[in-house]
Amino acid sequence: MVEIRRHLHQNPELSFEEVETPAFIAAYHEKLGLDVRTGVGGRGVVATLRGGKPGKTVAIRADFDALPIQEENDSPYKSKVPGVMHACGHDGHTATLLVLAKVLTEMKDDLEGNVVFIHQHAEELAPGGAIAMIEDGCLDGVDVIYGTHLWATMSTGTIGYRSGPVMAAADSFTVKVQGKGGHGAQPHKTKDSIVIGAQLVSNLQQIVSRRVNPLDAAVVSVGAFEAKNAFNVIADTAKLTGTVRTFKEEVRVAIEKEIDRIAKGTCLASDASYEYVFKRGYPAVVNHKEDTEFVVDVARKVPGVLQLEEIEPQMGGEDYAYYLEKVPGTFFFTGAEDAEWEETYPHHHPKFKINEEALLIAANLLGATTLAYLKQNAEKKVELTK
Amino acid sequence: MVEIRRHLHQNPELSFEEVETPAFIAAYHEKLGLDVRTGVGGRGVVATLRGGKPGKTVAIRADFDALPIQEENDSPYKSKVPGVMHACGHDGHTATLLVLAKVLTEMKDDLEGNVVFIHQHAEELAPGGAIAMIEDGCLDGVDVIYGTHLWATMSTGTIGYRSGPVMAAADSFTVKVQGKGGHGAQPHKTKDSIVIGAQLVSNLQQIVSRRVNPLDAAVVSVGAFEAKNAFNVIADTAKLTGTVRTFKEEVRVAIEKEIDRIAKGTCLASDASYEYVFKRGYPAVVNHKEDTEFVVDVARKVPGVLQLEEIEPQMGGEDYAYYLEKVPGTFFFTGAEDAEWEETYPHHHPKFKINEEALLIAANLLGATTLAYLKQNAEKKVELTK
Amino acid sequence: MVEIRRHLHQNPELSFEEVETPAFIAAYHEKLGLDVRTGVGGRGVVATLRGGKPGKTVAIRADFDALPIQEENDSPYKSKVPGVMHACGHDGHTATLLVLAKVLTEMKDDLEGNVVFIHQHAEELAPGGAIAMIEDGCLDGVDVIYGTHLWATMSTGTIGYRSGPVMAAADSFTVKVQGKGGHGAQPHKTKDSIVIGAQLVSNLQQIVSRRVNPLDAAVVSVGAFEAKNAFNVIADTAKLTGTVRTFKEEVRVAIEKEIDRIAKGTCLASDASYEYVFKRGYPAVVNHKEDTEFVVDVARKVPGVLQLEEIEPQMGGEDYAYYLEKVPGTFFFTGAEDAEWEETYPHHHPKFKINEEALLIAANLLGATTLAYLKQNAEKKVELTK
Amino acid sequence: MVEIRRHLHQNPELSFEEVETPAFIAAYHEKLGLDVRTGVGGRGVVATLRGGKPGKTVAIRADFDALPIQEENDSPYKSKVPGVMHACGHDGHTATLLVLAKVLTEMKDDLEGNVVFIHQHAEELAPGGAIAMIEDGCLDGVDVIYGTHLWATMSTGTIGYRSGPVMAAADSFTVKVQGKGGHGAQPHKTKDSIVIGAQLVSNLQQIVSRRVNPLDAAVVSVGAFEAKNAFNVIADTAKLTGTVRTFKEEVRVAIEKEIDRIAKGTCLASDASYEYVFKRGYPAVVNHKEDTEFVVDVARKVPGVLQLEEIEPQMGGEDYAYYLEKVPGTFFFTGAEDAEWEETYPHHHPKFKINEEALLIAANLLGATTLAYLKQNAEKKVELTK
Repeated sequence: MVEIRRHLHQNPELSFEEVETPAFIAAYHEKLGLDVRTGVGGRGVVATLRGGKPGKTVAIRADFDALPIQEENDSPYKSKVPGVMHACGHDGHTATLLVLAKVLTEMKDDLEGNVVFIHQHAEELAPGGAIAMIEDGCLDGVDVIYGTHLWATMSTGTIGYRSGPVMAAADSFTVKVQGKGGHGAQPHKTKDSIVIGAQLVSNLQQIVSRRVNPLDAAVVSVGAFEAKNAFNVIADTAKLTGTVRTFKEEVRVAIEKEIDRIAKGTCLASDASYEYVFKRGYPAVVNHKEDTEFVVDVARKVPGVLQLEEIEPQMGGEDYAYYLEKVPGTFFFTGAEDAEWEETYPHHHPKFKINEEALLIAANLLGATTLAYLKQNAEKKVELTK
Repeated sequence: MVEIRRHLHQNPELSFEEVETPAFIAAYHEKLGLDVRTGVGGRGVVATLRGGKPGKTVAIRADFDALPIQEENDSPYKSKVPGVMHACGHDGHTATLLVLAKVLTEMKDDLEGNVVFIHQHAEELAPGGAIAMIEDGCLDGVDVIYGTHLWATMSTGTIGYRSGPVMAAADSFTVKVQGKGGHGAQPHKTKDSIVIGAQLVSNLQQIVSRRVNPLDAAVVSVGAFEAKNAFNVIADTAKLTGTVRTFKEEVRVAIEKEIDRIAKGTCLASDASYEYVFKRGYPAVVNHKEDTEFVVDVARKVPGVLQLEEIEPQMGGEDYAYYLEKVPGTFFFTGAEDAEWEETYPHHHPKFKINEEALLIAANLLGATTLAYLKQNAEKKVELTK
Repeated sequence: MVEIRRHLHQNPELSFEEVETPAFIAAYHEKLGLDVRTGVGGRGVVATLRGGKPGKTVAIRADFDALPIQEENDSPYKSKVPGVMHACGHDGHTATLLVLAKVLTEMKDDLEGNVVFIHQHAEELAPGGAIAMIEDGCLDGVDVIYGTHLWATMSTGTIGYRSGPVMAAADSFTVKVQGKGGHGAQPHKTKDSIVIGAQLVSNLQQIVSRRVNPLDAAVVSVGAFEAKNAFNVIADTAKLTGTVRTFKEEVRVAIEKEIDRIAKGTCLASDASYEYVFKRGYPAVVNHKEDTEFVVDVARKVPGVLQLEEIEPQMGGEDYAYYLEKVPGTFFFTGAEDAEWEETYPHHHPKFKINEEALLIAANLLGATTLAYLKQNAEKKVELTK
Repeated sequence: MVEIRRHLHQNPELSFEEVETPAFIAAYHEKLGLDVRTGVGGRGVVATLRGGKPGKTVAIRADFDALPIQEENDSPYKSKVPGVMHACGHDGHTATLLVLAKVLTEMKDDLEGNVVFIHQHAEELAPGGAIAMIEDGCLDGVDVIYGTHLWATMSTGTIGYRSGPVMAAADSFTVKVQGKGGHGAQPHKTKDSIVIGAQLVSNLQQIVSRRVNPLDAAVVSVGAFEAKNAFNVIADTAKLTGTVRTFKEEVRVAIEKEIDRIAKGTCLASDASYEYVFKRGYPAVVNHKEDTEFVVDVARKVPGVLQLEEIEPQMGGEDYAYYLEKVPGTFFFTGAEDAEWEETYPHHHPKFKINEEALLIAANLLGATTLAYLKQNAEKKVELTK
């Protein structure tokens, strides 16, 4: 497993540009004798293991794209591609899934159902690979889906779980204020877009402070304010760009509307106009309660799992969200921090790394959950047949 | 003159409540044998002196109402009316005009024209007495008008003048923000009128900073912000009350409109509504250039006038403005500060006082100007007849 | 139980003014033969039932004060006291506890431990009665505490529970901005406290939007903005009063500090000064996890409990919080809405009412939990002795 | 005169890069036989005409640099230098001065005093040429200075004058807000420089609306707001750049201080820091009253002058200001608009042009004023000698 992960780490490929990685994955599964579909939803790979006995179908997902980051680690298996790096652990996800496929294939005859291995491209770049793979049928016949993220800032041995929203919907927006430019010494002949934009930034603070239920987590951040001219010229336009994070669809919809309302009123107060674009990113990852509890129950007996921690939701986004909109399942976090590291680097950092022992834990838990699920549902079926 | 002034000082009457004062004035003029009209525009008195020779008609105006202030001076002629005081010098204005009438009456036969003495009630309280007196004919046949204000913060001997705008238009406004109240812990179910009102106050600053020509003086001040509830209840309404000062009609009109625009946009941004009332007070006093220069020329030779000072406009209001909208003329300031005072108190202060020598200077200058005007225009007439 | 509740309903007493109510309660318990302490922490009553067998000590708390509200219901047992009303269900709480005491007293001999009935005065008015009763020893020897709130907007038959924070810390604050007053036409000679206060309100929005973790619920509301003068006078002071709601002590402390920081900077920007008072109200009610789960387990078998609902935290406050800072326990909500009502009125409303059937459910659940707790801990003890 | 102007128009040179222009000027004056100094204060030329009789010394100033603008007119004498254009009339100023020198030289023997022709480089680019030329002695021995600006938006035949401030001080400033960057989804870990900068822009509006005397014209404009990152990253810095226009030194100094005060308080409120740079540009051009009235008196009899107009101050800047800080004098505007033009383009416009007849008017008025001044002061001298 470590070998595969290191091979992938040395050969990272950017989102929507993956060629060698899916080929490598497909070859591996084909060698195992699984049914393999390539080019799923573009560049995804789906391998299906059909068990020797009838039963349910479990899907397990791993993503395989890398990031436009120059690696700054000095390991022997450092990225060979300048400016591209597996800085989010997707190499580990893929290795975990491949080795798990091998192990489960060995148990094929006794398997009471089927397992679908979903290798997804382009998780890091909207619109992401998940939505296209789903449209291309990767979830057809699937009863439940499991997935995990190796997490560099959580101790190895810890499994982080949460029912309900676990990762935020991550949207972006742009408001372009159209005022009227002019000489800095003659403000009365202009509509000062910087003054309007400044009010807009202030007024947007009210969305979270006044218009969203205090119990609903939400973020509205303006990340860029651009209005550039000579120092003595009043700017005719100001462009604000920002991000919105939410966990509930109703809150997401309300914020989209409130930004518009505030932009409208603020511009009207200065007789200016505006253009507003709200661009939806990934929705919130909402774990199903029953499936999350199921994984937690299984985890108690999985070797290597030392601690189960109910985590706070993460404000970051993941296109795993789309799978959970279609089928039941859960997404958990597998701790991959090494207690011996001098410093821990966060995901997307040029010095990001993971403790490779975590791959085995992830594989064990995904495998054990899959087997437990198939077994439980097979028994039920039997009972029902009686 | 001092005697008259002190009599009036001891017996002040509030705006629109004047009874004894106009009676006293009328009696004085009647004794001089002038044509006297009382109850002009309500409580005003107009006395007309017809000269022995034909010519133009000059009006001179003095106001005679007092203020709802408890005098704190200890002079022997202190106000006898509790809570009412001549704290703006109108007693002096009246005395000046009466004595001037007496002097001019003595010169009656040689007078080349007529003089109209306008004693106005209610200058201190909008809508003021001027507008009603004009409607009631006090300016009929008048060619030019002169008036002065004794000025306690300018040295006795100084005459302050200015062509063009010399006192501001003083208007008031109210914006009542109608939000939606609710529990302080549930802002998302409310439209927080305090937050909206706060933005409104901030946004109103832009009128002067961005929307009025920097060369045009203007003030927009919010003097009251009222939104009161229990500390844990979000207020459903916030009431803002303020004042606007301007010198040009176009700026005045623009500001009235801009307050509305800003209230509209600011409320819209929070889905709230509002009621807006803009109440016009006195317009700006705009001195006519030719007449102002005429007074200045005359003043150079008037005994007691030590200094002529071109003053900055005053942001305060005066309903003398209405006379100047109808006929040419000017309004100047007669210094009435005594160099020996330990402290000088501003107009409307409970310890306000004036140097009574200033009354003579005012009378001299008004009289000299009147005579010069009548003479100049009489001569012209003669020249034209040749 | 209904009879007692109606008696109390007709005879409500305000917080810190209770006389008849505690006397009534004490007499009831004394008649049952319990150990009764009156005047606990001022006006509280504590009755102790000592069981026939050794064991743990369970406390159950009910509050008994009423509100300064004029009842608008027309029931035969309407409040007889003008302007005072049991509009929050405390009459029901008290009746529940009294009848429960009677029932448990009947089981006295078999009881494996003790039960302390805490009747608390003054829940509605800070600083509340709880803190004084605790200081006066009401929790001495207590191992666990249970309490409930009848909830008029939740269906009868439903029990609402939640581990962790369930009711917010409710604090209040005042910021008095000290500017410098003056004439509305001369802003440059003033420090305009309304403009400063307006900025302050806007800037305070950032606490929730920018400075608190989006995952931590918090509210900062300004409920009153007072700055009143004549319309043409710039106000020298503006007084802002508001409320803060939080669930975590660290967030509470941080917000107290941030309000100060913002007031300081905002005033400094205008060379003004300020006075800031932050007044702590009740802390957050934080239910203990184990005890909450214990009640939920018990509730599954209690007659009348139709549904168990994990509720969202409430932003309102309760001084039950203090008990849970001292001993383990939980506070749950007992649905008291009647499906046949045409309209449901919220707590503190003049037409507030409760379905009296809910009292029985509350008593059943509190009683069953108490017995289960004593039994469980007694058994354990036995096991340990073996 | 027209020929010279057209020659210069075809061969414009940028500020601080002038070579041919000063050489041309110097050659012209040398040919007339005047004392010529070149390289004055860098690239300036000063020519002195000593009159045949003793008397005062009058300086006349013309600037000669051009602008980095591509001319879009199609005249036969269009600029030959790509991207450089005399778009502000300095070619006309220079031609006027040269021909005036020729005329006055012809009257040399009767001249009761001296005339200094100051040809200044680099008026368009701060710090300007004036300050260096003064330091290099161009005003030594000068008693009075005159200058004019050809004005394309005022009718030919009109002379615009004004005592006191006539062109504004034009300063610039930069405030760099230093917050703390971070992920857009975690505002509580950052100090959001865009939110702080936005407040700063809003708060700066108060300088003009609240802190400057309403009678003093002033402008504070933010022309650029730069804070650019990925949409989901909170910006660590925001840079604001702006301009300040004032007419009085005390207002200028106060505004410099108020920007600092507001930046300090606003940043403190968010625990952020800032860097503030206020860069003084040219001071206000303040015409001396006596000299302005003198020019106006002279102008009444100058052929070509059809109208004398007291103009409003201009918010633009001019380094002629420095001369008037050293010696008495005035700066007036010579209308150069042609009634037959279809459209009038403002100064600094690629299609800017002037009516060449205005050059003669300018020369006549400057010449007549110079002669009148020398004559008046010579007479006085004679009187004194008696």
